[in-house]
Amino acid sequence: MKMILVDGLPSAVVQADDRGLAYGDGVFRTLAMRNGIAELWPRHYVKLAADCRALEITPPQEADLQRDLAQVATHARDCALRITVTRGSGGHGYALPNTVKPRRVVTVSPLPQYPGSPAVQGVRLRYCDMRLALQPRLAGIKHLNRLENVLARAEWNDPAIAEGLLLDTADRVIEGSRSNLFLVEGQGLATPDLSQCGVAGITRDLVIEAAQKNGMQCEVTTVSTARLEAAHEIFLVNSLIGVWPVAALGWRRWTDFAVSARVRKWLDACRNPSH
Amino acid sequence: MKMILVDGLPSAVVQADDRGLAYGDGVFRTLAMRNGIAELWPRHYVKLAADCRALEITPPQEADLQRDLAQVATHARDCALRITVTRGSGGHGYALPNTVKPRRVVTVSPLPQYPGSPAVQGVRLRYCDMRLALQPRLAGIKHLNRLENVLARAEWNDPAIAEGLLLDTADRVIEGSRSNLFLVEGQGLATPDLSQCGVAGITRDLVIEAAQKNGMQCEVTTVSTARLEAAHEIFLVNSLIGVWPVAALGWRRWTDFAVSARVRKWLDACRNPSH
Repeated sequence: MKMILVDGLPSAVVQADDRGLAYGDGVFRTLAMRNGIAELWPRHYVKLAADCRALEITPPQEADLQRDLAQVATHARDCALRITVTRGSGGHGYALPNTVKPRRVVTVSPLPQYPGSPAVQGVRLRYCDMRLALQPRLAGIKHLNRLENVLARAEWNDPAIAEGLLLDTADRVIEGSRSNLFLVEGQGLATPDLSQCGVAGITRDLVIEAAQKNGMQCEVTTVSTARLEAAHEIFLVNSLIGVWPVAALGWRRWTDFAVSARVRKWLDACRNPSH
Repeated sequence: MKMILVDGLPSAVVQADDRGLAYGDGVFRTLAMRNGIAELWPRHYVKLAADCRALEITPPQEADLQRDLAQVATHARDCALRITVTRGSGGHGYALPNTVKPRRVVTVSPLPQYPGSPAVQGVRLRYCDMRLALQPRLAGIKHLNRLENVLARAEWNDPAIAEGLLLDTADRVIEGSRSNLFLVEGQGLATPDLSQCGVAGITRDLVIEAAQKNGMQCEVTTVSTARLEAAHEIFLVNSLIGVWPVAALGWRRWTDFAVSARVRKWLDACRNPSH
């Protein structure tokens, strides 16, 4: 199952002078391939290219990535993909090279198996001590500078805790360590504003758009822990988990996952537009 | 001259699943080797090990790195070294692997040549637009999450500008893109506090200690741009440049580099304690 493509060729290694390794100078995406199809590929490509441009990295051609995906599909029809694009090799210290060829690395691994039925029963969360720094220049981008996430995830190893929530240095609730967050409040949704920090995933965009299409308000806003815990429901989203309703956070319990289930149906419809 | 050692062996490549590449999950040092001696090695090792521990990475054994340095010295007596230590390969997403072997990468390149005589004539600086985020958990550590530095350095390509100054998001002056900063004020020195952001280099530590030893006060403090521009002298330090007095920053000019020259002598004495 393990397979890595570097610039389209199977390889276990990358150049040691890659700027992704030296400085985290690059971006990435994580997505699911099911039945040989990279789910929501057009969305992922648009976001990958936008994130590259935000760092002034020339995005890879979509056709090159599609060839990579086709090659993966001959090897594994159902898998998790990570697509990394680094600025490439070269430059003098931090200074960019005059000419540089971005490098793409596609890593294939088994689709993660989650214990229990998290989508049905809901998951348990914790608050992380780690705080996200406010950096508007990098906010929203899924770049390779992810030490905050690594250190947040290292705070717990109880497998009963499915995800950790990250607050920013101003104590606003931002996201999960690897997921975006929604609150169900009254008849509408709310999701944290990511203009200062956090990663804006494509599933979050899809939920915001699907809510609009289905006549449900979705507010992008500031979320305190008090507001979060007062929500009727809360749920997490990302490209691998889909939608996970939250059953517990500290002492707070939730048992009604009706809106989460509705949102999951919207996302299923996006993934399989023919149905 | 180009040479890379990965875990002690010459290699142009590293494993593509290294967490340094995936998340910037590691630390590094840059230092000079002159006449086969890695300058101020004991200091560099102590700082490298401390930075590893700050990220809960097991530091490499000093003996292993010393063997790497000896190998480099047979190849290039005078060179710039970059020593990178990553957490290694493995783990499931952000989660750390149960057992992981940190990886060390030693990269050799020519000592940089700087046009003119920057140490004598002083250098020209600019302010960068990029702001450093306030992240006390990572402040001071020379980790691999360096997109802020990369983007700051990408702001100019006029070779007459030797360095860019970085302010934090609260508009305090912090450091150069690849150097630490000192101000000469009255009879003493001042250097920006790095408890919220920035990289605490070993040359900065040496200057602070040498000032104390030589009866010169050195304050670690908050520095505004007004305070910076009001200083009698300002100078930059790092392991490769040593001490560079600043001759120009925007419209401000400095011509007296007496204290910078004195500090350079202190550092020369640290590098060659036998003299």
